[in-house]
Amino acid sequence: MTHAKKLMMRMKIKNELARQCLGEIIGTFVLLLFGCSGAAQVKTGRDMKGQFLSANLSFAVGVMSAMYLCMGVSGAHLNPAVSLSFCVLGDLPWKKLLPYSLSQVLGAYLASAVVFVMYYDAIMNYGGGVLTVFGPNETASIFATYPTEGVSLQTNIFDQVVGTATLLLCILPLNDKRNRPAPEALLPPIVATVVLGIAMSMSSNCGGAINPARDLGPRLFTLTAGWGVEVFTCFDYFFWVPLVAPLVGAVLGSFFYQVFIQWHLPELEPENNETKQTWYQRYHNKLVVHKLVKLVVSLLS
Amino acid sequence: MTHAKKLMMRMKIKNELARQCLGEIIGTFVLLLFGCSGAAQVKTGRDMKGQFLSANLSFAVGVMSAMYLCMGVSGAHLNPAVSLSFCVLGDLPWKKLLPYSLSQVLGAYLASAVVFVMYYDAIMNYGGGVLTVFGPNETASIFATYPTEGVSLQTNIFDQVVGTATLLLCILPLNDKRNRPAPEALLPPIVATVVLGIAMSMSSNCGGAINPARDLGPRLFTLTAGWGVEVFTCFDYFFWVPLVAPLVGAVLGSFFYQVFIQWHLPELEPENNETKQTWYQRYHNKLVVHKLVKLVVSLLS
Amino acid sequence: MTHAKKLMMRMKIKNELARQCLGEIIGTFVLLLFGCSGAAQVKTGRDMKGQFLSANLSFAVGVMSAMYLCMGVSGAHLNPAVSLSFCVLGDLPWKKLLPYSLSQVLGAYLASAVVFVMYYDAIMNYGGGVLTVFGPNETASIFATYPTEGVSLQTNIFDQVVGTATLLLCILPLNDKRNRPAPEALLPPIVATVVLGIAMSMSSNCGGAINPARDLGPRLFTLTAGWGVEVFTCFDYFFWVPLVAPLVGAVLGSFFYQVFIQWHLPELEPENNETKQTWYQRYHNKLVVHKLVKLVVSLLS
Amino acid sequence: MTHAKKLMMRMKIKNELARQCLGEIIGTFVLLLFGCSGAAQVKTGRDMKGQFLSANLSFAVGVMSAMYLCMGVSGAHLNPAVSLSFCVLGDLPWKKLLPYSLSQVLGAYLASAVVFVMYYDAIMNYGGGVLTVFGPNETASIFATYPTEGVSLQTNIFDQVVGTATLLLCILPLNDKRNRPAPEALLPPIVATVVLGIAMSMSSNCGGAINPARDLGPRLFTLTAGWGVEVFTCFDYFFWVPLVAPLVGAVLGSFFYQVFIQWHLPELEPENNETKQTWYQRYHNKLVVHKLVKLVVSLLS
Repeated sequence: MTHAKKLMMRMKIKNELARQCLGEIIGTFVLLLFGCSGAAQVKTGRDMKGQFLSANLSFAVGVMSAMYLCMGVSGAHLNPAVSLSFCVLGDLPWKKLLPYSLSQVLGAYLASAVVFVMYYDAIMNYGGGVLTVFGPNETASIFATYPTEGVSLQTNIFDQVVGTATLLLCILPLNDKRNRPAPEALLPPIVATVVLGIAMSMSSNCGGAINPARDLGPRLFTLTAGWGVEVFTCFDYFFWVPLVAPLVGAVLGSFFYQVFIQWHLPELEPENNETKQTWYQRYHNKLVVHKLVKLVVSLLS
Repeated sequence: MTHAKKLMMRMKIKNELARQCLGEIIGTFVLLLFGCSGAAQVKTGRDMKGQFLSANLSFAVGVMSAMYLCMGVSGAHLNPAVSLSFCVLGDLPWKKLLPYSLSQVLGAYLASAVVFVMYYDAIMNYGGGVLTVFGPNETASIFATYPTEGVSLQTNIFDQVVGTATLLLCILPLNDKRNRPAPEALLPPIVATVVLGIAMSMSSNCGGAINPARDLGPRLFTLTAGWGVEVFTCFDYFFWVPLVAPLVGAVLGSFFYQVFIQWHLPELEPENNETKQTWYQRYHNKLVVHKLVKLVVSLLS
Repeated sequence: MTHAKKLMMRMKIKNELARQCLGEIIGTFVLLLFGCSGAAQVKTGRDMKGQFLSANLSFAVGVMSAMYLCMGVSGAHLNPAVSLSFCVLGDLPWKKLLPYSLSQVLGAYLASAVVFVMYYDAIMNYGGGVLTVFGPNETASIFATYPTEGVSLQTNIFDQVVGTATLLLCILPLNDKRNRPAPEALLPPIVATVVLGIAMSMSSNCGGAINPARDLGPRLFTLTAGWGVEVFTCFDYFFWVPLVAPLVGAVLGSFFYQVFIQWHLPELEPENNETKQTWYQRYHNKLVVHKLVKLVVSLLS
Repeated sequence: MTHAKKLMMRMKIKNELARQCLGEIIGTFVLLLFGCSGAAQVKTGRDMKGQFLSANLSFAVGVMSAMYLCMGVSGAHLNPAVSLSFCVLGDLPWKKLLPYSLSQVLGAYLASAVVFVMYYDAIMNYGGGVLTVFGPNETASIFATYPTEGVSLQTNIFDQVVGTATLLLCILPLNDKRNRPAPEALLPPIVATVVLGIAMSMSSNCGGAINPARDLGPRLFTLTAGWGVEVFTCFDYFFWVPLVAPLVGAVLGSFFYQVFIQWHLPELEPENNETKQTWYQRYHNKLVVHKLVKLVVSLLS
């Protein structure tokens, strides 16, 4: 055994949660690295180096790449709303929700920093040397999401709830053995296609975050990098919408999938020798309604 | 057994047809949720948040997602023209045709309602506060399909017949074991690609509905939501074209596939232990011509 | 046995070549149906209903659909240049080359007719009632390919040779068991992606036909439909370039693949029980050089 | 045994390295053939025959096609930065690094020559008969990459390091059996999607080469074809950035993957009968850190 091998053995993270958090950090980092740099290229290139569709596609490639990267480590949630759903479903212990979510926010923050350095010159040229949240030269929307003028708060909340519910409703069947699942090794491109669909159809009102970490991490970065507190205060403190609404939407979407589809699927024959654990396979034997009832009961008592 | 489990057991829908209808409602809901919101984003965004291709791609993602969602429950027809074809082919009992079709229309109606709420502000801003079927600020085409100026009725009928025939001609071989079928678990993205192709090449004349439910559901919604009876009366009562022509086209396409391709394929070795029933697998042992002859005979007698 | 069954049995085409020709007719019909209607939608829609990329994508969807449709019947050549290559390689008997090619031209002709009827109103509106080959209102390029102004004859010949050579060079490894083949059931989308690549990168000079049938069929149709003999005489009788150059390019591309890649691949272990015959699987045990030598010898003697 | 067969046997390249170099030449040739001709079509077509996204997609199709073409021969590195990573990882002998890299540069050079001939007329028309590196009529960027005005040297170096690190970070898990690998037969389209993502999001500053051969080969060609020494001297000798920075980035990306993901993955059960060698499968039992330590030690001693 060489020194390097020994070094590796010693540095291998023993703690499972630490490993998983590291996986979520790297995964969300890659997701936002593609997503924000795609948005930066389209915006600072003034539509000459890709258009809106390119930015949507960049995010989708980010989802695919991030999932292949960390599915084996952490399950590739990449999104606190997804992690919350899995907690409600009993697939992720509640105590892991905060570490997972913070890791995702941290990964998104770090990716924003890299994109900022990579596009520093372009952002400065585009904004005329000023980092601003408003006006035709605003560059804050490269990182976090902001609402379109003329769209009300309720609409934006509804938009984020529906978008995230759609996400969960569409990805839960992909690995449900009682339904007609997608090939497991091709889950990343198929989930990425669903995310692409949501970006193309539900990002018009307020940017289609459907992911609190994807929004908060970059917003915190822009706060620290020079855009100022306006990134939080603007549009009447809009920032809380992509933080809260996706959480509600994700649980709602899981609930819909269970009540309207999964309950009524034929039972599977019991299989004994399942060796490989898929990222949300265990979930499908559980009932979100059951968990919700228990959650409500425990909250009430 | 917990209360939630008991609740689930009690609420599980025993009736197969009711389960299937629920599946078709949710599936068509998701299809139109992606499709109409994609159209809304492109139109109200005035091509700045995606262009025509994005709206086509949104529909395709809707097809893929809807198929993964309800293939295990109802077979994911999502289209009365497809259901009719399967009735003619003997794969769906005739008595299920109406319930299936109504479920699809209902799913499409509900999705339109969600999209309307989600894009209410944007639609109002785009249309200047008016919901209209005509002119540069029309927003009815976000939901139902309307013909282009200068295209005759016969052309639109032909367009819908050809479009739907193409759909059936292209999806029937995908699961025909005597031909070279696609991987079953990848049918949704491949069928979605066929639908994308039709949307990119045959939606110019009158919107490329190729699906009576996709058109009638949203049209009924716009009728009730404030666009008025013009959604039905406009363009000389055009609305019946995407209702009737796709039904003709679908049967014609199935007929073409059987007569020109399937009849002449080599016979398969008989397999005994087929356990899994694919969505239109049983169909391929049957003859549409046979069924058509029987249908005509029964109609005549 | 019912009447319909008996009818089917009696109408089943016994002759293998007739069956294969029927397969090629339908396959090329579907290829051109997507391709030409995609071009018609983009052109007559004046880039408002899809842009250049949409037309490229429509052709690719046509390739995918056509391959799934007739691979089990005829091998889905869809292109006389591909059929010629397989003749040279000894995979298709020389006596079948002409029937295959004529079938492909016929399929392309029929598809053009359907597209013409479907887009008749739009073509007339676009061209101001005139069907012309020249000028800003020309509509002939919806069907056949024409060179861009300022591109010389030699360049166009070179373009078609390189384009078709690229096609063969890229699709031959996809099913070569000694190389790293693609999944057989996913050949259609992967071949379609190669065709998309060629359409996006090598269709600028003269339309990227890379297929004599794809060009001659629609050109013959436009001759008979009212565009006049100019479709053949224009650009100094350009029409022979997409007829002849792809044939040269295809053989050249096959030759390149064999000499530079296949010769040097490791030998496969012999397998005895190959039951399923793939569309150009047998080819890979043969040598194009061998065949070319024999062909030259037989031509000289 | 015929003459042709004998000829083939005699011409089969016995030397493994020569075979591999031939594979890399053809593979990189196909990659650049699609890539540069896609760029030429978009630029000389003045966005009427495809837009920026089409050029990105052309490169991705080139990656896919090139990988299917030469994976069985040489492993389809197609990029000196990838070859260097595999040397550091111990998967490619150091003595093969220079032959591989030179082969890749040669393949890229040859492809540029073919694209130049194919687009000679279009390039001359676009540039007004002049081959220039600067100004609105420049055509040098069809071949090699050049920085955007107003972007500093440090930014471009950072851009290329991050881009290539992202490439390695995203493709290494795709075939890591301890992670959740992609289907081996679908590696080419998935790697192509990652490259597409990088092209859409990280090609704004200086063209997104992320591959020294992809940049140097075409640059050398433009030097010899008439653009003059400016292709090397322009932008303050920018040309060294896409030569050096990707090498650093690739090793860095491999390092990141190992330290943050691979170290912490569960150990695989030992498998004895692995018959097929995947393109970088052996790599995953080795440690880049280990190799780096050894490299540094050997450099220091």
